[in-house]
Order: sequence, then C-alpha cells, then structure tokens
Amino acid sequence: MKTPTRLLIGLGLATMALLLPAPGIRAGQESASGAIPWPRVEPTEIPHDRPLRAGFLIVDGVYNSELMAPYDILQHTIFHVEPGIEVFTVSPDGESVTTFEGLTVGAHYSFQDVPPIDILVVPSTVGSMDADLRNDSLMHWVEETGQQASYVMSLCDGAFVLAGAGLLDELAVTTFPGDQDRFAAQFPHLDLRREISFVHDGKVLTSQGGARSYDVALYLVDHLYGTRVATGVAGGLVIPWPPTAATMPATVITH
Amino acid sequence: MKTPTRLLIGLGLATMALLLPAPGIRAGQESASGAIPWPRVEPTEIPHDRPLRAGFLIVDGVYNSELMAPYDILQHTIFHVEPGIEVFTVSPDGESVTTFEGLTVGAHYSFQDVPPIDILVVPSTVGSMDADLRNDSLMHWVEETGQQASYVMSLCDGAFVLAGAGLLDELAVTTFPGDQDRFAAQFPHLDLRREISFVHDGKVLTSQGGARSYDVALYLVDHLYGTRVATGVAGGLVIPWPPTAATMPATVITH
Repeated sequence: MKTPTRLLIGLGLATMALLLPAPGIRAGQESASGAIPWPRVEPTEIPHDRPLRAGFLIVDGVYNSELMAPYDILQHTIFHVEPGIEVFTVSPDGESVTTFEGLTVGAHYSFQDVPPIDILVVPSTVGSMDADLRNDSLMHWVEETGQQASYVMSLCDGAFVLAGAGLLDELAVTTFPGDQDRFAAQFPHLDLRREISFVHDGKVLTSQGGARSYDVALYLVDHLYGTRVATGVAGGLVIPWPPTAATMPATVITH
Repeated sequence: MKTPTRLLIGLGLATMALLLPAPGIRAGQESASGAIPWPRVEPTEIPHDRPLRAGFLIVDGVYNSELMAPYDILQHTIFHVEPGIEVFTVSPDGESVTTFEGLTVGAHYSFQDVPPIDILVVPSTVGSMDADLRNDSLMHWVEETGQQASYVMSLCDGAFVLAGAGLLDELAVTTFPGDQDRFAAQFPHLDLRREISFVHDGKVLTSQGGARSYDVALYLVDHLYGTRVATGVAGGLVIPWPPTAATMPATVITH
C-alpha cells in the first residue's frame, strides 16, 4: 500500500485538480477521453458535495478477499479525490462476524441504524447460494437497499443474493467461474456472461470474485472519478491501470 | 471463492492423491518437474504430521490487503492438502486492531500465548517505516519469532520491519515500489531488487504487496506442497496458476 505520506501527496494533487478544473470538465472527472478499454458509461447523477457511502454487507462466513479487495479500492479514493467514498460494514444485528477464513471482523452498522447507502456491495459468503437466500430479513434488506442505491456490486457468489433479491432482472451478469453452471440453472431467465472478470450493466456491477475483486472496484472508481483517480488508487495496490481488454476482460453495456 | 462443496471435492481428490502417491513422490509434492517459471528450491525440512502454523502479525494500522491476500491463500490449503496450514493472527496484547482502512479485526493470540510459529507473516502497517521500528517489544518479538520460524514473509513495507529486526542480512529482498528508494537509503547494506513481484532467498520471502500479495503466498504453497495444490488454491481465488515469468516476475535464489 502507498504510505500516508504518499497518499497525502496524491490528495494534494487531487485537490489542486479540483480547484482548477479545465473548462467543461466536471470535478473529479478525467479530462482525456479515457484510457479504459471498455465503452465509457456516463455516471449516474451522484452528489459531489459529500462523500458517497459504500455499505458492505457482512454476515458470518463472508469471504475475506471478496470483502477486502473492493473495500480497499473504494476506501483509498479519499486519498486521491475529494470527497471520496466513505466505506463501512453492515451486519444484520450490528455485531461482529466470523469470516470463512476464521477472522473476526467488526460491523460499523446494523440494518436498523445504517445510513442511506449509495453503493451497496455484497461479497460472497458460505451461504450465498442457499442459506442467505432463505434468510427473509436479509433478502428483504438487500432488495430494498439495492433498489434505493445508485450502484450495486456483487463479488463472486454474491450474485446469487442479488439475483434472489430480483436486482439482476433484465441485466447481463457474472459470478464465480466454478458456480456459473449452478447460477444458470438456478436463474435461467438471467443473462449470464462467462470468461470475463466483471460485468457493468445499468447500475449493477457483478464480478467473478477472488483476486479479481479488485478489477470491478477499480472500474467503478474510474467510472465515477476518471482514470487519473483510478490510476492513483491502483498504484497504491500495485495494480497496473488502465488495464487492457486482454488482461482484464469485461463486459460493459451502454443503454 | 470456491464454495465449501467444491472445496471438499478438492480435498477429496487431494486426500486420494495422498493415499496413492506415485513411487518416490513425497505426499503433497508435485509429480511433474514443476511448472512454475522459477528455479525450484527444495523446501526446508518441515513436519508433515501436523498442520504448519502461519502467524500473521497485526497491529493498529495494518493494511487490509496485505493481511488478507496471503491469509486466504495459506488458509485455503486445508481444502487441498492434508494437513494444510493453520493460520492465525497475533497482536501484541491479544486485543483487536483497527486496520488502516478502518476495519476492526480480532487477534487469535497475544505475544504471551501464541504457539510456536512455522511461517511468520509480517504485513505492512501505517508504521512499518518508522513507529513500528521504534517499538522495542514488537521488534524483539519479530526478531526472535523470525529466527525460530522455518519461513518468514513480508508484504509491502513489512520488509522494513524484517530489515530492522536483522532478518534480511545477506539476502536479496523487495518491498513496495513507491518506498524502494527509501528502503535503499535506510538499509544500504541490503540487496534490494526492483521491478519484481517477490523475492525468495533462504527462508525469507518479500513481496511488493498490494494485490500482488497473492503471488508470493501462492509461490510458497507451490514450494511447500507442489503445483497441484497451488493450482487448486489459486482456482478458488480466480488466479491462473502456474503463472508465467512475464505475468509474475520474481527472483528465486538457490543456494
């Protein structure tokens, strides 16, 4: 990771860029036409006078990587653009959870006291394909929160939860490679894409997960704040940015 | 991540492989000459009748990715080889820590009650380059534990802590790209390597960190258990394995 000193240097430059926008360029947006290898989709209208709020759903059995990779990407935006993204975890009762790998991770909020969420992130859990889908209060919260959010992201089998909540209808999506056959059987009406790191369609981003969970989150940062900010965040995590379509195959749908 | 069902299938196959070793092949070792693109180093003599113990040092300000990426790789071995690696976190006083990104993560052990460690892992923290180096009890623990461990791994600026503890003398090493100049100035007697994901020299593995923290941990799994096991772990995290020298440049020193 970049050290705070270097992060603050990055923030200083970002702040300068915001103070001196090129004519016709929105604060935080890239001035070049964009070096990402996918169609550039215009961001949803989002507030620029406060941090966006990214809420990560955690329950017992959540997988570390699928939680931490996008968490780090979105959290590090605050060192490269102002205001960046405020990230937090939400568990149903606000209590800590035990991850699949055996770590205890705290929750910042419960379903009862969580503030409005702009970016809902649903990492995979050990129960994403079955137990979580039968948890009515969990699924109700995901459905309601996802409907109100500006963006919804799943990592790995988190796509099963979004599908179960009806948030993927009419959209192209992806999930963990080893579970794609099961996904296709369980949700035959959905447009499953394979052999790609992630899909962005409408307000929904779905990722294969695992170590590829960084990709989709960096893409979202590029989408929201432009390639300069995404490149800064990526550099702090030793990820080349922008990627090529070969190193990071993805499907981006423009409507 | 692979689902438990798939992980258990993997474990089943791994167990079968262990029950039916090819003549002259050690349990858990690859039968082929090895597809990794680096020189294959013979593992240190390690016990095969119990799980290896990997202890991850955590203090306030530890970076999520540098903790979680190698944690997941080493933890997932238990689904692909028997016995795999038992992973746990160690904080100085056994209390939870707050990561750089603001998550609360629990510690399994304190310096006082931690069992002997076979693989010491030192992720970067916000203080790796300064405050941690001035923490005498921390540095003493790292030095003593590192000397007794069979393997020692650092991610990102964790290399500064290992260097400060005298564990990198005479060895080739690497660290976070943006801090390599500072590392070279602070430890001019050490053999710093640049432009590579990780270095393995003697019993020490040092990594650039960030998203590349998966690489070095997968390399260690391949080194300890062979390419079949590493490929299984990698698949669960959507990482192609074995890599090529182009996609994962590294320095492996044979003595």
